[in-house]
Order: sequence, then structure tokens, then C-alpha cells
Amino acid sequence: MKKIRFGIVGLGNQGSYYETKLFKCGRIENGEISALCDNNPAKLENAKTMLEQEVPCFLDYKEMLDSGLCDAVIVTTPHYIHPEIVIECLKRDINVICDKPAGVYTKHVREMNEIAKSSNAHFAMLFNQRTNCLYRKMKEIIADGGIGELQRVNWIITNWYRTEKYYDSGSWRATWKGEGGGVLINQSPHQIDLIQWIIGEMPKTVRGFCGYGKWHDIEVEDEVTAFFEYKNGATGVFITTTGEAPGTNRLEISGTKGKLLCEGDKLTWYKLSEDSIEWSRTCTDGFSIPPMEIIEVQTDGKNEQHAGIINNFANSLLGLEEFFVDGTEGIHGVELMNAIELSGWKNGMAIDLPIDEDEYLRELNCRVNTSRYKKCDDNRVIDNSMSYGVVSNINT
Amino acid sequence: MKKIRFGIVGLGNQGSYYETKLFKCGRIENGEISALCDNNPAKLENAKTMLEQEVPCFLDYKEMLDSGLCDAVIVTTPHYIHPEIVIECLKRDINVICDKPAGVYTKHVREMNEIAKSSNAHFAMLFNQRTNCLYRKMKEIIADGGIGELQRVNWIITNWYRTEKYYDSGSWRATWKGEGGGVLINQSPHQIDLIQWIIGEMPKTVRGFCGYGKWHDIEVEDEVTAFFEYKNGATGVFITTTGEAPGTNRLEISGTKGKLLCEGDKLTWYKLSEDSIEWSRTCTDGFSIPPMEIIEVQTDGKNEQHAGIINNFANSLLGLEEFFVDGTEGIHGVELMNAIELSGWKNGMAIDLPIDEDEYLRELNCRVNTSRYKKCDDNRVIDNSMSYGVVSNINT
Repeated sequence: MKKIRFGIVGLGNQGSYYETKLFKCGRIENGEISALCDNNPAKLENAKTMLEQEVPCFLDYKEMLDSGLCDAVIVTTPHYIHPEIVIECLKRDINVICDKPAGVYTKHVREMNEIAKSSNAHFAMLFNQRTNCLYRKMKEIIADGGIGELQRVNWIITNWYRTEKYYDSGSWRATWKGEGGGVLINQSPHQIDLIQWIIGEMPKTVRGFCGYGKWHDIEVEDEVTAFFEYKNGATGVFITTTGEAPGTNRLEISGTKGKLLCEGDKLTWYKLSEDSIEWSRTCTDGFSIPPMEIIEVQTDGKNEQHAGIINNFANSLLGLEEFFVDGTEGIHGVELMNAIELSGWKNGMAIDLPIDEDEYLRELNCRVNTSRYKKCDDNRVIDNSMSYGVVSNINT
Repeated sequence: MKKIRFGIVGLGNQGSYYETKLFKCGRIENGEISALCDNNPAKLENAKTMLEQEVPCFLDYKEMLDSGLCDAVIVTTPHYIHPEIVIECLKRDINVICDKPAGVYTKHVREMNEIAKSSNAHFAMLFNQRTNCLYRKMKEIIADGGIGELQRVNWIITNWYRTEKYYDSGSWRATWKGEGGGVLINQSPHQIDLIQWIIGEMPKTVRGFCGYGKWHDIEVEDEVTAFFEYKNGATGVFITTTGEAPGTNRLEISGTKGKLLCEGDKLTWYKLSEDSIEWSRTCTDGFSIPPMEIIEVQTDGKNEQHAGIINNFANSLLGLEEFFVDGTEGIHGVELMNAIELSGWKNGMAIDLPIDEDEYLRELNCRVNTSRYKKCDDNRVIDNSMSYGVVSNINT
């Protein structure tokens, strides 16, 4: 069978990972690398030498797109230019997978999504965490009414400990100008996406309490506590940081018919036989809760991560599978991150969604204009795979 | 040996519990009931009939104090009059144990604490949860520097599910006028006390996001998410509600040298060999954390709760033990609760500690003045002991 020919744009840590650990290792069944692109010659050369076969290399991504060599492109550049490159792909009807986040600010992402509507190409976000059986199962249970009406969500995702060395590994890292944010945009965008994907709803109001360079010598946030309010009155707390060791990864979602707890690769369903709010109105006892079953939830066990997304993309292009992640959904996570940042900049003020995109961009640009650059070796590629060990911790 | 003669003021659910489940059952070794008091004749009569021996009964607590029958008094009335009765005890140099909370507003509690300074009597708060071996051990580990500098505290204490029937069990319940607050002042004051006692520090700034009558037909808060900021920059989240089933009781405290996790009657210590912030500065790797030991902490296993506090009080009066809970410490929890309420009333505004006590009282009185009363049977005593089953859930 014909293989989908993939070009990779951006050969930093993540692009190299796709190249060497997925394609080179034969984990993309119906896909192969047909072109490589990075505007840094040293990185491009390095990536070229990693492959056994000869692959065309490009310093200019548009030349790669116009070369006719790619059926599909994986965009894994610094965040700011994700939408720009995706747009160029979509305009050419070249299928494209965008690494997370969809972009840095919603205005840009919205522009990308508009182009996507009129393109014939497939567009996916590389939300590898959506392949995790635990999160898929949570989404399914909630959509089926398994915990009733949403009451509260709480995600403590603090196991992103990073050292100064990590932040020194790229001049774009952890700067407003280079990355457009810190732990929110780099480490936690998966969880930020998942929290709305699993629940099936965005908050209506967001507050963010952020620590900027609190644990590291960086200008962006390395600690966040966010407070969410949903349309039905439900609330949420989202906590993340790169400054704690060892961290925690614990997601709890409570509803009127019970709760789901995802922690340590285990999903527990506390399933009530009746709606607890209705029970409260009719029960003749002051303290008792409705009869409850505690279920250790069985899943399909599949958790294919980055390979899963890329395989699904190739296979859906070949008509073998249904398409899994619509790329235009990436805007939700970006909007949530933007709202948290904006609130953080405004001392925890409540920000209603949808956010004022122009205000956000203005505020971001103020920070970009005074952003500091760090002098360091931008040619080095570091091995990200250390952070892939634990299922529930797979990221970047 | 001489037994300490205890009078009990307030024979509602809690007073009856002390009377019948502690004193009557012989669990207070060096104490006995010498007098009973309630301004409700029906409750007083009910309490009287529960004892085998004849015990003097009073409708007016001052008459009881002046009777010479009491070496010590346990105050377990509605919250508002706690300080007033304690003050009358202290003025007469009668030893007194005050049930939680110390009062409803700090201004009143501060007045009580001033009187305590010049009294010869012993004054304790009935912080039964401080007897829990897990919490005592956490306090000890933190004070010994076992987790380094505080970075974050997170307490999800949502296992206070209550039905409408519970709220109908007393006209003072869950009203601004009768109780002065909801889940904060009634269900969670122990955790509010413990969070500052275990850490050994109060936050410097507090925000509260409260739901008023969100899950029940009441006027006060039955759901709270609070955000704390400490002097050193550490942050905290405290979540409580009476509207979720089943709830959670999970306390996590993170510091630069590790974290403590208390959940399900188990205390786990994630102990780093080095300070993680120092490690971040010197480590040549981007992702690794300092070497860590995971310890399931052994405690002395003691968890004597209410009996423990009352026994310690009697024994310390007899010179047999050291006094455990200084009553004047009750103000910390009240201040924390007041700050959360005040912020809640002001739409989550940041409230600096110490709070403006006059402002708080003014705002509270506005709510008291428009408080609604519920028509119900005030003479009924309900059995609180259902909420005492789980060690980590012992309360009221």
C-alpha cells in the first residue's frame, strides 16, 4: 500500500523525536519521512544524519511545501509560527498535523481555523494525550451522564519539574517573545485541552494566579493556580508548575451522580444510584449519601500517544480509519490559556469567555516588546523522552 | 483521685454527644458531669433523663457558673455566644473548653483572648482533630524542616455531604443570624484550624469563591474554593462543600525538599535528598529531580478526638499532663474563615491579613439583619455520630 509522505518542519527536540523514535523506528505504519525542514542549518544537518536514507532538506518551509514531496506535514516549530505554517499548508491543500499548542493567541488560531474551513486538506492537532485510554474513558462516562451534572473539576498537574538547564536549552524557551508563555503553553497544554475535552465544555469565567519566574530565572510563569466557573455553576481548579519535585498528577471530576478519579494510571468511578441533589431534597436522614458503587474502571488499555495520532492521521488519509482529532479544536486550549494569562496579568481578575482577543494580543505584545533574550547554544537538541516514562505524564 | 467537675452549656447535638457518649460511657477518666445547662427547657429535660444520677440543671448559664458546682465548663452552644460564655467563665476563673469555632468574628474572639490573658483559668479549644496522629506527625515533620520551605498546600475536604433534613434540624443552622456562616464555620473549622496549625503559619492574602445556598435551600455558603498566598510566596487551595457525594479528604503539602500527602488514613512522605530549587540551579540535566525516598510514615497511632481533648484538659488541671490546646489559638481559624467570607462577599477580592475586623463585622451584620429564619422543630436532637466513622472525617 502507498505510504503517506510526511515532511517535518522544525527539528528541535520534538521534531527529532518524531523523526528518530517514531518514523525511523518503524512505528508509523503507513507513513514515511519525505522531507525535512529547519531554518537552522546545524539542526537540519543533524537531523539529516540521523536517517539511513537520503531525504531532501529545506531551510525554507514554503519551498518544502511547494516541492511536491509531501502529502502531509508535521509542524513542530516554536509555538508562535504554528498557525502561519498550518495556514500555508491548508492553502495548498496539504494535510497538516500541528504540534501543541495550536498557537500562542486565539486571534491567530481563529484565522487558521477560518482557512481550515475552506481547505480540502486534513488538519489535526497533535493532542497525543487524547489517545490515553483513561482520558477517553472519562470523556465517555461523562458524556453518558455517568456522574450526572458537573459540580467540580480539580486537576493538580505539578509533575513538570524542570531545571535551569532545561530553560537554557533554547533561546525561545520561557520568554514572552520566543514562546509566549511558560508552564501553561509548554508543559500543560495537553491537560488544558483535556480538561475541556473530557468535560465537553469550556468554563464561562476564568481566574489565574500565576508566579512569573518564581522557581527559575525566567520571565514567564512557572506556576499557575486557575479557578474556573462553568455555565451551570460548577467550579474548577487547575494547578500546574515546573518548580515542584516530586509533583502530582491527579484529576478528579465530581458530579451530582458521583465522581471520577484519575490518578497513578488508575481510573476510579464512584457511582451513585441516585442524583445526590435530588436525594438531599427527599432523604429523611441528615447525613447519608445515596447508595454507591466503587468501580475500578476497565479501559481498552490503548495509549498510543504521538504514534497514535500520526498513525490515525495517515490511516484516515488512506481511508482506513476515522479521523480522531479535528485540528480546529486546538483553539479551546489556547483560549483557556490566554484567559488564565490575562487574569494573571490583571492580578487574578475574573475573565469572561470568550476573551477579548485584541486586548490579549495587546497585553502579550507589551511583554514581547520588553522580553529578554538569553544567550545560549540554540543548536543543541536535548532528549525529551525522559519525560515520557509514565503514561499519565507523557507530554511536550 | 479527685475528678474534675464539668458543667456543659448547650445540650444540642454536640453537647448531648459529650454527655452520653463520653462522660456517661466512662471515657473521661478524671472528669464527671456536675451540671447541665440549656436555655431550652425541652433540651435540658431530655439531657437530664439521659443520665442515671441526678444532676443539677440550669436554664441560665451564669447561674450555673455561680453555683460553685463546676471546676470546668464545656461550651457547646450556637457559635455566636461562644466568646460571651467563655468570657464569663474566665472572669470567674472557671476553666473552660470552647467547642469550635472560637466565635463567629475575630473582634469578639480577640476580646475573649484579652480576658484570657488576665484569667487564672485554663482555656482550651475543642480542636479534636489536632489529636489525630496523622496531623500531629505532619506538623512535626514540617517543623523539623522535613519538606524544606513551603511551596504549596492543597486540601480538598468535600466529604461533608448534608441533606436538607440536616439543615432543618435547628433554626440557627445555616443562617447568618444563627450561625454566622455555612460549611466554613460549621463543617470545616477543624481543617481551617489544622491548615495553619500544621504549616505553622497563616497566609498573608486570602481569596474566597463561595456558593451561597448553591446545593441546599440555605442562605449561607455550602461550597467554598479559597486561594491562599503566604509570606514566602507559597500558595494554597482549600476546597470544601456539603453538596458533593461522595466527597474527598486529601491534604497535600509541598516544599522544596519534598511533599507530604495525607489521604485515606495514610501519610506518605516524598523525601528529597536535596533542596529541589538548589538542585535546579546546579543540575546539568534538564528534567531529573533530586534522589527521593518514599516513606509510609509511622505514627504513634493515637487519635483520641473529643475524649482526648477533654481528658487532656482534666488531666492538665490535675497536674498529670501537659496542656495541649491553648484556647487563644482559636482566633487563627476564625480569622481565616472571616477572610474567606469577606472575599466571597466581595466577589473574590484579595483580602490581606490581618483583616479589617470592623469591616467584617459591618458586612456580617448587614447579612444578619436580613437573615431569614426557618420554621422547624428546635427541640429535636439529632445523632451527629454518623459523621464520626472515618478517622480523617471526625468532626462537628
